[in-house]
Amino acid sequence: MENKMIGIVGGVGSYAGIDLIKKIYDLTGATSDEEHLPISMLSVPHKVTDRTKFLLGDTTINPGIAIAEIIDSLLSNGSNIIGIPCNTAHAKPIFDLIKARIPENCVLVHLVEEVGLHLSTQYPEIKKVGVLGTTGTILAKVYPEILSKYGIEVIQPSEEIQNLFVHPSIYDATYGIKAFSNPVNIKATENLSMAATYLSRKGAQAIILGCTEIPLAIQYQEIESSLIIDATAVLAKALIRESKKQVAELA
Amino acid sequence: MENKMIGIVGGVGSYAGIDLIKKIYDLTGATSDEEHLPISMLSVPHKVTDRTKFLLGDTTINPGIAIAEIIDSLLSNGSNIIGIPCNTAHAKPIFDLIKARIPENCVLVHLVEEVGLHLSTQYPEIKKVGVLGTTGTILAKVYPEILSKYGIEVIQPSEEIQNLFVHPSIYDATYGIKAFSNPVNIKATENLSMAATYLSRKGAQAIILGCTEIPLAIQYQEIESSLIIDATAVLAKALIRESKKQVAELA
Repeated sequence: MENKMIGIVGGVGSYAGIDLIKKIYDLTGATSDEEHLPISMLSVPHKVTDRTKFLLGDTTINPGIAIAEIIDSLLSNGSNIIGIPCNTAHAKPIFDLIKARIPENCVLVHLVEEVGLHLSTQYPEIKKVGVLGTTGTILAKVYPEILSKYGIEVIQPSEEIQNLFVHPSIYDATYGIKAFSNPVNIKATENLSMAATYLSRKGAQAIILGCTEIPLAIQYQEIESSLIIDATAVLAKALIRESKKQVAELA
Repeated sequence: MENKMIGIVGGVGSYAGIDLIKKIYDLTGATSDEEHLPISMLSVPHKVTDRTKFLLGDTTINPGIAIAEIIDSLLSNGSNIIGIPCNTAHAKPIFDLIKARIPENCVLVHLVEEVGLHLSTQYPEIKKVGVLGTTGTILAKVYPEILSKYGIEVIQPSEEIQNLFVHPSIYDATYGIKAFSNPVNIKATENLSMAATYLSRKGAQAIILGCTEIPLAIQYQEIESSLIIDATAVLAKALIRESKKQVAELA
């Protein structure tokens, strides 16, 4: 009756990886060390090209190549269920390559599909959401394409809001979350809150934190009349479900 | 000029493992994903018997057996430098078994030796310290034996303080840190602060947080006239040093 091991592709980004693990622990409800689920994380960030840079054409090296190698290594170390705590890696040009390169029977949880599933089962009244993410995620239309299957319309920031406020909050070397994760720079938090407010006032019933760096900055549950949906927490729940589901199947 | 991969024995305890990784990231000073050091963590807590239970004779299964297996797995996955974020696992009956079972050339950083090195180089004026840890760490005299080599005297809590305040703050199922890590229960923080005050008033110039769960509760830098030494942060610094040292040797 062992739970299956969760394998996490770390380093995309680094703090986001441990934020995912923390959320898995938080949602497990263990009262001793032994009750926690088995988890393996492999973080080799110097080998993984930036996902947004690839989608924008600033590098021709698809980060999916390295991510697939990391997944192979996690599988060889005993992991059964894989999660990638990077929304941008779920853009089709990257994710499809990963899928093509890993074993067919690998249970690779799709973060964005899980957000669609979560919204449609837990909040069926929500039909219009806003998404905050990297410019790679926004331009590749990762959320609009997938959530449309669940009958959910996605509002993305304007090009101006995206370029002046959202993307630099993640990437800027002087105040972005990737450079300042602990603590997050107040400017990043303020800029992201402003962008979330913008999406809320444009009619989004919920705001998806669609980059795993963003929950490090935005830790409140609502903004104005919109619910905040933490995609990392949704991934954590899905990984726990898959880890335990296999037990039931084997029992 | 690649940095070598840090392998972390996770799950002992679970939040302590990610606290160590967070401290490695905090101390790295990276401004992009790619600049973070490579890290692998393997956490299979259901396989590792409780370290204190073994030292107290409540189980005959030495947790060092499973820890050595985890280290082998980390090594086979490309890790070069190993850290175990559990002070109690550094008690001789456990640590010696681990050493005997892993390859001789494995760079296994000794958390408690590193605390001795840190104190003697950074704070040569400190000659008397107090230690907060599990009952296993205290009874096995892990800190007194090792720090005596550095000319440092160690004050441990009385049996009463240890059993009524320190150990339950870590292990109690209703308020201990292993059961409530995020957030830590206020009772655990208060009890540990009381024990730290006790050691300070007994003459300790510094208080060592000698259980990796304790820095989750005590996050201030001083108590009364005593400095707080976070053993997990010391381990993080040592792992970074070793990861970078090998680069210099290879260059």
